[in-house]
Amino acid sequence: MRILGIDPGIAIAGFGFIDKIGSKIVPVQYGSIETDAKTPPEKRLLQVYESAGALMDKYKPDEVSVEKLFFNRNVTTAFSVGQARGVIILAAAQRGLPVAEYTPLQVKQAVVGYGKAEKRQVQEMVKMFLKLSAIPKPDDVADALAVAICHAHSVVMKQKINEVRP
Amino acid sequence: MRILGIDPGIAIAGFGFIDKIGSKIVPVQYGSIETDAKTPPEKRLLQVYESAGALMDKYKPDEVSVEKLFFNRNVTTAFSVGQARGVIILAAAQRGLPVAEYTPLQVKQAVVGYGKAEKRQVQEMVKMFLKLSAIPKPDDVADALAVAICHAHSVVMKQKINEVRP
Repeated sequence: MRILGIDPGIAIAGFGFIDKIGSKIVPVQYGSIETDAKTPPEKRLLQVYESAGALMDKYKPDEVSVEKLFFNRNVTTAFSVGQARGVIILAAAQRGLPVAEYTPLQVKQAVVGYGKAEKRQVQEMVKMFLKLSAIPKPDDVADALAVAICHAHSVVMKQKINEVRP
Repeated sequence: MRILGIDPGIAIAGFGFIDKIGSKIVPVQYGSIETDAKTPPEKRLLQVYESAGALMDKYKPDEVSVEKLFFNRNVTTAFSVGQARGVIILAAAQRGLPVAEYTPLQVKQAVVGYGKAEKRQVQEMVKMFLKLSAIPKPDDVADALAVAICHAHSVVMKQKINEVRP
């Protein structure tokens, strides 16, 4: 199963495609979508939407995983991130891809096993899980991979639960 | 000039098309886009996006006006409204329509002439400006028409400013 993890944003959105093969997780492609602050906001949204759609068409994920909320940021940021999130989720919905949402707490628990883990710990675990030589930069890319890994683990857990049902 | 005013939201988004003919403002069509809470969030976003696009294609606005921020709401609501806002602005950008954004303060100042006006006063002025027999319901529709009127007034002001420039 191929999972696309997204850390949404209008200036920069991180993305990470991973393959879950059995219990193994393998990185496929990761990077960021960036838009210029001098571009009008509606054009930037269009760029994020088109880039996200082009990535989905190229790497054909089976499911999409998006970070849910950033409680520590302010309302203005939430609006801006929300708008970027909206057009990315739209691109997924138009392709019939299921979208899973995880809070930062859930991501930390899934990746580090500890909900209050530091950002750096999450990044180190992402590097380890994907056998990368360095932590992906910028942070948005590592965050996108983390939410993808979180979904991969969550899917594994659901499968296990299904197996033990009578 | 035809203006589409939008009060974005995922459960309900108000819309209002008005024509500015000289100094007159005439209502064209108004109403709401509603989605069912039982529908998955990504499908609801898709519905808002497709409905907004269909309305733009049907009533062919020249410009779009959207309320900017609701400072009094919480971060979770801001995310949800932001996502809906994102897909509506995207639909406008894909059609090459300019998108103007106004804060609630600017809307109140433009419509009532007083930034701290009550919601009811704004609604009464919308009714009066558009010569309606009643205040449009639900509130989201009246709010959408208010932000459209705000843009119409703003355009008039810009034209006046241009006229007095040497």
